[in-house]
Amino acid sequence: MFKVTVRDHIMIAHSLRGEVFGPAQRLHGATYVVDATFAGPDLDADGILVDIGRAGEVVREVLGRLHYRNLDDAEADAEADAGLAGQNTSTEVLARWVADRLAARATAGDLGPGGRALAGIEVTLHESHIARASYERTL
Amino acid sequence: MFKVTVRDHIMIAHSLRGEVFGPAQRLHGATYVVDATFAGPDLDADGILVDIGRAGEVVREVLGRLHYRNLDDAEADAEADAGLAGQNTSTEVLARWVADRLAARATAGDLGPGGRALAGIEVTLHESHIARASYERTL
Amino acid sequence: MFKVTVRDHIMIAHSLRGEVFGPAQRLHGATYVVDATFAGPDLDADGILVDIGRAGEVVREVLGRLHYRNLDDAEADAEADAGLAGQNTSTEVLARWVADRLAARATAGDLGPGGRALAGIEVTLHESHIARASYERTL
Amino acid sequence: MFKVTVRDHIMIAHSLRGEVFGPAQRLHGATYVVDATFAGPDLDADGILVDIGRAGEVVREVLGRLHYRNLDDAEADAEADAGLAGQNTSTEVLARWVADRLAARATAGDLGPGGRALAGIEVTLHESHIARASYERTL
Amino acid sequence: MFKVTVRDHIMIAHSLRGEVFGPAQRLHGATYVVDATFAGPDLDADGILVDIGRAGEVVREVLGRLHYRNLDDAEADAEADAGLAGQNTSTEVLARWVADRLAARATAGDLGPGGRALAGIEVTLHESHIARASYERTL
Amino acid sequence: MFKVTVRDHIMIAHSLRGEVFGPAQRLHGATYVVDATFAGPDLDADGILVDIGRAGEVVREVLGRLHYRNLDDAEADAEADAGLAGQNTSTEVLARWVADRLAARATAGDLGPGGRALAGIEVTLHESHIARASYERTL
Repeated sequence: MFKVTVRDHIMIAHSLRGEVFGPAQRLHGATYVVDATFAGPDLDADGILVDIGRAGEVVREVLGRLHYRNLDDAEADAEADAGLAGQNTSTEVLARWVADRLAARATAGDLGPGGRALAGIEVTLHESHIARASYERTL
Repeated sequence: MFKVTVRDHIMIAHSLRGEVFGPAQRLHGATYVVDATFAGPDLDADGILVDIGRAGEVVREVLGRLHYRNLDDAEADAEADAGLAGQNTSTEVLARWVADRLAARATAGDLGPGGRALAGIEVTLHESHIARASYERTL
Repeated sequence: MFKVTVRDHIMIAHSLRGEVFGPAQRLHGATYVVDATFAGPDLDADGILVDIGRAGEVVREVLGRLHYRNLDDAEADAEADAGLAGQNTSTEVLARWVADRLAARATAGDLGPGGRALAGIEVTLHESHIARASYERTL
Repeated sequence: MFKVTVRDHIMIAHSLRGEVFGPAQRLHGATYVVDATFAGPDLDADGILVDIGRAGEVVREVLGRLHYRNLDDAEADAEADAGLAGQNTSTEVLARWVADRLAARATAGDLGPGGRALAGIEVTLHESHIARASYERTL
Repeated sequence: MFKVTVRDHIMIAHSLRGEVFGPAQRLHGATYVVDATFAGPDLDADGILVDIGRAGEVVREVLGRLHYRNLDDAEADAEADAGLAGQNTSTEVLARWVADRLAARATAGDLGPGGRALAGIEVTLHESHIARASYERTL
Repeated sequence: MFKVTVRDHIMIAHSLRGEVFGPAQRLHGATYVVDATFAGPDLDADGILVDIGRAGEVVREVLGRLHYRNLDDAEADAEADAGLAGQNTSTEVLARWVADRLAARATAGDLGPGGRALAGIEVTLHESHIARASYERTL
């Protein structure tokens, strides 16, 4: 199995509902350093799994819908095509949101022909030097 | 599959028995930077896999039993509930010791309700900038 | 010259006023991974510049006044003893705010006797994997 | 499952054939920081998966065949026992080349008796702070 | 003193002349992860030292003249306005080349008004996980 | 000013005397990831400050005197030419010990001719992902 990973980041504001979150129930924010990993069993005729440059652009476009936004806002949710409505924007939920959008882009051919042959995608959001969360899915 | 990882560290002394260890047969020591990863298929009603704050506290408690100790000492082994007796405290063995204690804490409900629904735990010990070891197990 | 550095972090929301900030004029947020460096020419009788454990606690207390807050709020400014009022909470401004509070704590003896003999403090805030800002001052 | 990872690096020149590579079709180069991970279900009588010192030496020997070379050269390909001929030396292809050589060394006993009992090998090449590729295989 | 640092990278081929370089006399290559640090005593009316976004663009433009090139080529030297001719493109020399170009851009106003008030620039090139070189200069 | 930095590490056991150290008064240990920085105003005829390969070897030799040792032992102190006797082997003291030995080696010509023209040396010991100490001196 081959994997290719590209790194980018977003800076967002949000609050989390539920006693379990303690002071994180207040409006605060985060930088998420994002590692997007594309996995598949075969290389194409050029010897690559996906075009790493194009992969970086697609990751940037997907993340751009959340970058510099307050995720508690209706406007941010609209940017996120309502994919975040009615739930906490926890690190886990955001990782899944990013992975699902990347999966849709891969299936649509936006990662090139290699993208359609991918077996899976994993997205990791580093929220600090001591905590991170991931979501891994098949394609 | 979702994963949540928290990072902490311990500083211990020990020696390793066996010719294969060369100069590491002498009493020396290590800082282990520890990544504890909790994995599971579903998020709870709050939108999280486990409470990352509580997970960090449990990791700290488990590591606290080894922190600032000489693992060659009987007292250190008592702290480790004899889990290290009769074997080398290699990076691999310590990773398994930590993972097994975290698994017991998760099963006991110490990570909250989400902890009981976890599918697996992986513990990685970074012993330097060029070497690390992990142990991964199901729950 | 000796230096001791401890690392911690804060997660805040804020917005920045001024066209130069582009989309960062919207309410968004950041994780700042904070490196606080204490510098001085001499070690004390214990062979240390400052007690690294106590230094970590003081850094945590100072950062705790900003952690999980929206810096645009009057309440956050009150926590910051009005030290942030009337200015953008840029990474540079926040680095200076932290360094000045640490300097006051060192002068007050909160870092122990070694803290009073320090020559300088530098605070670096990493806002992502590709950008950081620092403020360095004498004591 | 246990895993042991050692890190080393190579500095090479090469060019990539195919329009997808854009400016990387020109002769350029890369530092690859290499993480070689050995995985297996059991520890040996010494309490280790493989001798981490020996593993580091074998990784260095395998990487040494590519280090400080222009991979477009026939001489470099000879060093690589023709394993790179007729294909692009993409990060993915190089990760597989390294993993396959490590697998052969493990099977030949060069990692010690523990090496013969390994279940798999994963090799990751970090080509910058924002991109990396891996190849994972069974043994 | 305030400092702002942005990170980017280049991937180049080159060879080094002189027995001291051993196997690095062969044509090989490197990824340089570049940290460009801008230092100055004062913040502007917006509360920043320099516009971090604009700084990142200028660093990318300067590095773009070397990215994906063979520095042994006359064409690469032309891109580098002959600034590299007649000398080894060691990590130290490249750090100085980048710092001098950034200094010229700052003086020309390309970093905005804050750029003209800078006191110094430091450029660090990380050539691997175990080696780096820097050049620091006043403005 | 130019700087060249090489990284290596040591793994030692020790205990620290004094109530300020709390549980670190017990025999424990540490991995120190060591960054040794050499600084000077001029490059030599080869375009380098010091031979980075030779610098790495000298750093390894100096660190080798402490590697895999219990610094509380008389034998370890003998290896350290009594440079550690009668004082705590704190991170600060060890940083100075390494810097002073590197300075002596530079002055003796062991870093090559460039080493004699150095202006200063700084040694940083990272004791974990959240703490480090440095010693900086002139030559």
